[in-house]
Amino acid sequence: MSKQKRFFLSEEEIPTKWYNIQADMINKPMPPIHPKTKQPLKPEDLFPIFAQELSRQELDQTNQWIEIPEEVREMYKYYRSTPLVRAYGLEKALGTPAHIYFKNESVSPVGSHKLNSALAQAYYCKKEGVTNITTETGAGQWGAALSYAAKVFGLEAAVYQVKISYNQKPYRRSIMQTYGAQVTPSPSMSTRAGKDILTVNPNCQGSLGTAISEAIELAMNTPNCKYTLGSVLSHVTLHQTVIGLEAEKQMEMAGEYPDMVIACFGGGSNFGGIAFPFMRHNILDGKKTRFIAAEPASCPKLTKGVFQYDFGDEAGYTPLLPMFTLGHNFMPANIHAGGLRYHGAGVIVSQLMKDKLMEAVDVQQLESFKAGLLFSQAEGIIPAPESCHAIAATVNEALKCKETGEEKVILFNLSGHGLIDMTAYDQYLSGSLQNFEVSDEEIKKNVAQLEKVI
Amino acid sequence: MSKQKRFFLSEEEIPTKWYNIQADMINKPMPPIHPKTKQPLKPEDLFPIFAQELSRQELDQTNQWIEIPEEVREMYKYYRSTPLVRAYGLEKALGTPAHIYFKNESVSPVGSHKLNSALAQAYYCKKEGVTNITTETGAGQWGAALSYAAKVFGLEAAVYQVKISYNQKPYRRSIMQTYGAQVTPSPSMSTRAGKDILTVNPNCQGSLGTAISEAIELAMNTPNCKYTLGSVLSHVTLHQTVIGLEAEKQMEMAGEYPDMVIACFGGGSNFGGIAFPFMRHNILDGKKTRFIAAEPASCPKLTKGVFQYDFGDEAGYTPLLPMFTLGHNFMPANIHAGGLRYHGAGVIVSQLMKDKLMEAVDVQQLESFKAGLLFSQAEGIIPAPESCHAIAATVNEALKCKETGEEKVILFNLSGHGLIDMTAYDQYLSGSLQNFEVSDEEIKKNVAQLEKVI
Repeated sequence: MSKQKRFFLSEEEIPTKWYNIQADMINKPMPPIHPKTKQPLKPEDLFPIFAQELSRQELDQTNQWIEIPEEVREMYKYYRSTPLVRAYGLEKALGTPAHIYFKNESVSPVGSHKLNSALAQAYYCKKEGVTNITTETGAGQWGAALSYAAKVFGLEAAVYQVKISYNQKPYRRSIMQTYGAQVTPSPSMSTRAGKDILTVNPNCQGSLGTAISEAIELAMNTPNCKYTLGSVLSHVTLHQTVIGLEAEKQMEMAGEYPDMVIACFGGGSNFGGIAFPFMRHNILDGKKTRFIAAEPASCPKLTKGVFQYDFGDEAGYTPLLPMFTLGHNFMPANIHAGGLRYHGAGVIVSQLMKDKLMEAVDVQQLESFKAGLLFSQAEGIIPAPESCHAIAATVNEALKCKETGEEKVILFNLSGHGLIDMTAYDQYLSGSLQNFEVSDEEIKKNVAQLEKVI
Repeated sequence: MSKQKRFFLSEEEIPTKWYNIQADMINKPMPPIHPKTKQPLKPEDLFPIFAQELSRQELDQTNQWIEIPEEVREMYKYYRSTPLVRAYGLEKALGTPAHIYFKNESVSPVGSHKLNSALAQAYYCKKEGVTNITTETGAGQWGAALSYAAKVFGLEAAVYQVKISYNQKPYRRSIMQTYGAQVTPSPSMSTRAGKDILTVNPNCQGSLGTAISEAIELAMNTPNCKYTLGSVLSHVTLHQTVIGLEAEKQMEMAGEYPDMVIACFGGGSNFGGIAFPFMRHNILDGKKTRFIAAEPASCPKLTKGVFQYDFGDEAGYTPLLPMFTLGHNFMPANIHAGGLRYHGAGVIVSQLMKDKLMEAVDVQQLESFKAGLLFSQAEGIIPAPESCHAIAATVNEALKCKETGEEKVILFNLSGHGLIDMTAYDQYLSGSLQNFEVSDEEIKKNVAQLEKVI
């Protein structure tokens, strides 16, 4: 009854370096390819779009540890460490002998883990003299984080929010505007990429891939403006490793080590963020932790996609990335977990999947909300629809432990809260929410188009 | 730059006792009066409505410290201590030499301080064999807390939500339902109190006073059912002293002691919760801290009300309480700070006001949101409309320090976050939000009616 429930680090114990798993991977990720020259990408190729330091981090396969700038670390201290929580309530509700822990990133001021990279990206942009930044946002978690980070470092932010999410989650738009950002629903008529889509399909509800195209286009056409991204890319995942590095120390405080690390999967940054610091002990120290990415059944790139060079955005502005993908023009169903509606996986995760250093599972929308409701009532925290996928995978593993009687240690990342997503919970409670599955035929069709890409 | 930003207590340091200021008050609060017998209330008189232990706490003027039950303390550990935060961002934005601290109650799983008393009330009800509990909620913060607390202790919860808030904040209803509660907009046709109002005024948008009447009526007419309240009463404020007791230790960690303690004011529980533990040092140790209650200009009971015996609810079901009041049938304007739309102040605060041990200021709605926006951009946390009143009062005091150059230490309570109140921020940003002031005539009219009460 009186066992410790939450574990915190002091401000001095907050990590001073991010962990770059690329340095430790036996099989390095294949290089991104310049779409015109077809040559492996060099950092300079990314300078027109990204801050230079972020471009270098993106392609860094050498440095195991990368210093967190003092200014970013000072901002981390306002909400980090986030608590590591022993989910006694959930364990009891499931009747499982498993020990379930979660890293509660939902207590960040913006409500999700996204701030960890937003602060870093805004900082580097500011340092390099940038005045304006653009980005895309799916569920709005990244957009909110970037809007606040821009305000912190005195930058102007323009956010393209996927239209379905703009309409489903009007509060997220308000939050971004409260932080001072300019928000546009995507696809919009303000870019060529948006216009091209809207002229073919005026009712298009958008996707992350399209919003990325629009944000890149705006950045390319605006002086002193850079683009920032909320997931997928290696430097974003790098910044998120602060989650796993903290969790490592906190699990030590709890006297345990995870048998499984679970996170939801959109582009891979919250997954990589919590998983990679533990995975390094699998690679270097022979640990046998399982790493499970929970993706939506309606956007199953890891379980049903192909490993192939593909664009990161819908319009084809990005370099070609070696990724598990459903095809860059794949338009995912309108699930509420907007942050998971992305066609591809980051290059690091894609290589790790190929090398079987991690696993992936698909979760149906109804199953995700069932788990989210259970968690809400057991732990009091209403999880983001994205995080519900991680909880569903955790519940499945915990129930297997119940069958076998094994006291396994499960750690999952609660990437954000769902307080802006109550419409989704309403629909779940009223029985009007549905599952979406993508047909093999649709995937095959999209994947076939990819053949022409290089 | 590298000074500590947040202060936490370990689980062992979380207070084991609540502080009962009644024991230390020189002039005790005047007794609540039984409306029929006109005699001072005894705990037994409250047993039909409240759990017995809560009834005893309500009238306890003797015991300085009251033990927090083990089961409640174990639940506190899931979110307490809440952080004490040095608001460097706000200080910088204001250019003030003042040291501003806030106690961040918004990180509780339900998003506000309300859980501190909800857990206690649900626990005592459960312990005494109650199966169902009822309550009212204004902004929905209390209702959300009570719904979750009921779930924790295996009780059924029925919540009457003030209709204006039910419509303004549909997500709060969803949150309560996600926790498993039954939610009814008030006034409703399900009670006599509601029917009486709706037959006179079918478009009545409700008030806390009316919702209280409905919840009490349901409790009285339902076997094995008790009523619970989110503020005003002394036992609720007692439970909230865990805030100030933690803050006292945390301020010590920061090496400072507050010159001012500021909180928004509805019924008084978040104000008393943070203020009373510090006020005891004014009473007992000669400290000179100022205590400032920030109430809305549209519901100014402390600054413009009269001190008088009055009912706590609209229909007159409660005992008569010696309170600063605008009259129990006062219908406040539809401001977004629904938690502050209450006609009276708790009996302890009312006595303290009379004895000039504390002060009160009025804040206009626009001024409150201006302060909330400033805080959002400076600290990243979007405050509840109620908390915006505390921030506005803090800003005023910090700006006075800027004029005088004084390095005063200001502590305020961030009672909750405003993520469910983004409609209000939208309206503020678009310029469509307005101020409301209550005319002296209206107050005079309501107060005149009171004369007949006893």
